[in-house]
Amino acid sequence: MADAIRVLAIDAVEKAKSGHPGMPMGMADVATVLWTRFLKMDADDPRWADRDRFILSAGHGSMLMYALLHLTGQAGMGIEEIKRFRQLHSPAAGHPEYGEHPGIEMTTGPLGQGISTAVGFAMAERMMAARFGKSLVDHRTWVIASDGDLQEGISHEASSLAAHLKLNKLCVLWDDNHISIDGDTAVSFTEDVLARYRAYGWATRRINGHDHEEIASALSWAQKSRKPVIIACRTIIGFSAPKKAGTAASHGAALGPDEASAAKSALGWNHAPFEIPEGIKGEWEAAGRRDAGTRRSWLKRLAKHPQRDEFERAVAGRLPEGWQESFAAYKAKVAEDKPKIASRIASQRALEVLVPAIPEMVGGSADLTGSNNTNVKGIPSINPDNFAGRYVHYGIREHGMAAAMNGMALHGGVIPYSGTFLVFADYLRPSLRLAALMGIRAIHVLTHDSIGLGEDGPTHQPVETLASLRAIPNLCTFRPADTLETAECWEIAVRRQDGPSVLALSRQNLPALRDDAGENRSARGGYVIREASAERKATIIATGSEVHIAVAAAETLEAEGIPVAVVSMPCWELFALQDVQHQQAVLGTAPRVGVEAALRFGWDRWIGADGIFIGMQGFGASAPAEQLYPHFGITADAIAAAVRKSIS
Amino acid sequence: MADAIRVLAIDAVEKAKSGHPGMPMGMADVATVLWTRFLKMDADDPRWADRDRFILSAGHGSMLMYALLHLTGQAGMGIEEIKRFRQLHSPAAGHPEYGEHPGIEMTTGPLGQGISTAVGFAMAERMMAARFGKSLVDHRTWVIASDGDLQEGISHEASSLAAHLKLNKLCVLWDDNHISIDGDTAVSFTEDVLARYRAYGWATRRINGHDHEEIASALSWAQKSRKPVIIACRTIIGFSAPKKAGTAASHGAALGPDEASAAKSALGWNHAPFEIPEGIKGEWEAAGRRDAGTRRSWLKRLAKHPQRDEFERAVAGRLPEGWQESFAAYKAKVAEDKPKIASRIASQRALEVLVPAIPEMVGGSADLTGSNNTNVKGIPSINPDNFAGRYVHYGIREHGMAAAMNGMALHGGVIPYSGTFLVFADYLRPSLRLAALMGIRAIHVLTHDSIGLGEDGPTHQPVETLASLRAIPNLCTFRPADTLETAECWEIAVRRQDGPSVLALSRQNLPALRDDAGENRSARGGYVIREASAERKATIIATGSEVHIAVAAAETLEAEGIPVAVVSMPCWELFALQDVQHQQAVLGTAPRVGVEAALRFGWDRWIGADGIFIGMQGFGASAPAEQLYPHFGITADAIAAAVRKSIS
Repeated sequence: MADAIRVLAIDAVEKAKSGHPGMPMGMADVATVLWTRFLKMDADDPRWADRDRFILSAGHGSMLMYALLHLTGQAGMGIEEIKRFRQLHSPAAGHPEYGEHPGIEMTTGPLGQGISTAVGFAMAERMMAARFGKSLVDHRTWVIASDGDLQEGISHEASSLAAHLKLNKLCVLWDDNHISIDGDTAVSFTEDVLARYRAYGWATRRINGHDHEEIASALSWAQKSRKPVIIACRTIIGFSAPKKAGTAASHGAALGPDEASAAKSALGWNHAPFEIPEGIKGEWEAAGRRDAGTRRSWLKRLAKHPQRDEFERAVAGRLPEGWQESFAAYKAKVAEDKPKIASRIASQRALEVLVPAIPEMVGGSADLTGSNNTNVKGIPSINPDNFAGRYVHYGIREHGMAAAMNGMALHGGVIPYSGTFLVFADYLRPSLRLAALMGIRAIHVLTHDSIGLGEDGPTHQPVETLASLRAIPNLCTFRPADTLETAECWEIAVRRQDGPSVLALSRQNLPALRDDAGENRSARGGYVIREASAERKATIIATGSEVHIAVAAAETLEAEGIPVAVVSMPCWELFALQDVQHQQAVLGTAPRVGVEAALRFGWDRWIGADGIFIGMQGFGASAPAEQLYPHFGITADAIAAAVRKSIS
Repeated sequence: MADAIRVLAIDAVEKAKSGHPGMPMGMADVATVLWTRFLKMDADDPRWADRDRFILSAGHGSMLMYALLHLTGQAGMGIEEIKRFRQLHSPAAGHPEYGEHPGIEMTTGPLGQGISTAVGFAMAERMMAARFGKSLVDHRTWVIASDGDLQEGISHEASSLAAHLKLNKLCVLWDDNHISIDGDTAVSFTEDVLARYRAYGWATRRINGHDHEEIASALSWAQKSRKPVIIACRTIIGFSAPKKAGTAASHGAALGPDEASAAKSALGWNHAPFEIPEGIKGEWEAAGRRDAGTRRSWLKRLAKHPQRDEFERAVAGRLPEGWQESFAAYKAKVAEDKPKIASRIASQRALEVLVPAIPEMVGGSADLTGSNNTNVKGIPSINPDNFAGRYVHYGIREHGMAAAMNGMALHGGVIPYSGTFLVFADYLRPSLRLAALMGIRAIHVLTHDSIGLGEDGPTHQPVETLASLRAIPNLCTFRPADTLETAECWEIAVRRQDGPSVLALSRQNLPALRDDAGENRSARGGYVIREASAERKATIIATGSEVHIAVAAAETLEAEGIPVAVVSMPCWELFALQDVQHQQAVLGTAPRVGVEAALRFGWDRWIGADGIFIGMQGFGASAPAEQLYPHFGITADAIAAAVRKSIS
């Protein structure tokens, strides 16, 4: 049966003339034992909520995944799809892509992401089990990982956290093949990986990855572990290829016709390309339906379960009823109270309403809880002995945090949000990109969003970070101007099911600018927050903590008889989606001045290449915030002067 | 003597009303023993080339650094500077900033960077020793690191590499205080850190960080180690503060007047704020000059050393004579041969000339040597037993690689360059930002720079990456169009002493577009690569692998009688530095069309908000490159149509 995986990988890569045959050939035995004897699944419903999750962290070995989906007879991965491996519109893409086939749990390829995201899957399983009970939620997370996954720093962060949380239903199968692209892993990778994992608190074992009984015995053992498990599977990359097996040559390129044919001969495989004998295919298809009965029993339990509706709602990612009403009441109160607080505090106040109302929201922070204001009174943290909490102390592990959040969002039933400083978005960026690519709801509360953080200085002051986030497709970057806008942005982020959001929030206090809580004005991305008293002579466009400075400038100018409008643009991405008429109505035809305590990069879209921009020119500096704004020329006076200049 | 550090930290934070007193108070004893008995230094020349390097990886404890510089009597860190801790223009910034004082080896603050950069310092020491001998180069790298440093993934990558290379002159002093911002580290960090380090291959020891003899004994032992060393120093954060010691309350805020005064009483310290008794100051100053004789001997050895000039040149970062001539000859040959090769291959050809001519260039790759084309025939790799090589197999550790590169550049005598895929710039971004902030020469060869990489698909295809890099201040992002431009960009990057560079290079072949090797036309960032036959009707601006497509479009248009110029803009940052007249001359006044196989973000600056852009709209796809370009509408026909539309 394992050989069927090998030949499909050989044939598909050969036909595509590109791809990675070595890994599927090496890990075919491990995958076969896992999928035919251990993995809880039903090929007839690859999205069954209580299935075991299988993550191919070594995503370059995508043909392993496609071969398994095909062999178990899953719809949407027929032999025609396999033949179109790596071709336009094929679900059998170069790397496994979330959404291309329901059996693909996540997009992998960037190393370290799969194993780290798997930690989030396993966390979500424990949290969902705590909420709905073992009769509905009781499954495992299996990972196939490569040397590269274990070298990447993100996996260190996630693995340490997994052990801390004693995620014993997580099992990593490490393809210990001693080969990476530069050759023998010994050229750079000589640590004792399993000793390292034991130091984290994992259970470890070493096996021959081509011996089915050894594999089965290790997987049985893993199922009984009280710690997360890593199994080093000693394999031969490109197994069966007479010349290239055990070498980097089999890793990332087609074997070539001669070697491909010799490899098949070595396996005693005498069938035409892409042909799987019926007997073998039948065995695979039966294996793929082993748990059909288990699933039927589960469906019966679900049907009778008192929390059935709630479970189905949470898994589907639909928000509960009632939250909008309480949140509308909160916004109305904000509009009345007009608090002058930092937007990070405003975010906490919004969370005080949202988190109780939406039970699947799970917060956290990379060890900056008190600074990010991500926790809410009365919400306990999870810990290794109790997953009924809804807050995670991720430790100083931004990248692992973001990956775990992706895993929770992908698992379903959890809406993860958490926090760090905005400048440290750089540390978690690869996972954020993946969230955007997959289109999943992960919400990042990124505080201390400008020079307004003051004394910590340029290492902590984002200047290019907003631009770098706005550049990521399908990510919404929000930068609200006051407490009401912060509430509106939270509302949009929570509703947004098909992509991640960032909330960039201030450390410093911001005055309230609005008293109208009725319509969510941030939902269109940008709007006139202060209209001119007469026909506009200029439009000032600002975001976040600079909007009130822009309003002050407008007031000065109005006093001089210069009518000026101020546009608040908390979310560029949403504004860009509006029709042109709306955009023009908001932005006007008068000269425009942009204001943001960040670099100009990207602003020309809104103010034109000739528009004046008031903001940063380079990195920040260490000093109290009240001194930094004038030092860098971001003041109402400077804005007013810029407007006067632009209309002169 | 240690108490002098503590009270300076207390007083400075108290006066600034912000900062981190807990760490300096906790690590004062360790730092005192290190600086007064072990660290090879001479306060009279903090840049002495053979000094030991001291890296405060826990940069938030910056007052520890400033107190040490002040107490040892270093110029530029007088008590007035300490009193202006965290104020504008003070060298005593919120976090240690490279360039603010010669005794500060690097900027720290973002956790994990210091310890990982230190690995690069230690690598550079070994490489310089291999080149110039132990009589000139024989020093150690000492690091003070926090829990956060050890939780961050980057430190895992760097620590694994350090052990692989057996960097036994690297010693990390871990401030094991059991406290992080969210409280006891046990809320998220329960691994056995020292066992993990032993698994990497480090020597480890655990000591009482307040017992001077235990500290001294451990440091002596470290000096004899054959492996890198980590010492867990059990300390009490905020040591001596009666209420806040041992708690997170002492970490990141002023103690407050009462607690500050009580802490001083507990130490038996009865002096006015910022007053250090002469006796103690005298002891410290003497300690800071302990190695003055060692330095004088070293200077004598240097004076007589046969490689003296070469050593001084390399340490100063000046390029050797002769390289320009050989490189000019290479460029002339390229102009003649007009090879049609990928720009990653063009980069390798440039390196074949540069690396032999510039002996301090040290290459590498994060396990993509064959794809990044970063190595050159005949250049051996370094290995634990031989540092005479000039190539580093960094493993699949992009972040650790970039930090190590920073360390090598900061150490002096090495010009590091290395490679990964462009999309994985995200994995190393925090270190790249730090290189830009510090203004150091680290060169990143980032290949596979667009959908042109083909089948690997959207996880590997950068679309937003160029924009995200161009947004970083003081980073030059080069995207050359052909082999000659690639050579020009390499020339600029190598000469550029005050900031990092990225070379974004194609996987696919690119035709030669120029035959003029005389002037380095890329040096002005952008230039007319194909002038219109008559007065321009339009200007097409393109970069990298899309320039030849733009030229093809221009030829089509010219054939229709529409005179069109094509601008190649390999480096936006350099073009932005040109005077407006030059920019206008290049860009012209005719309508502009931008072309790049990436997102539009940032392009409005050059083409205007109304200009037409031919490029990507979102993430890429998995398919052969030849299909992806038409699929995403990046073709000569589409460009020609856009020009026709823009002039109609």
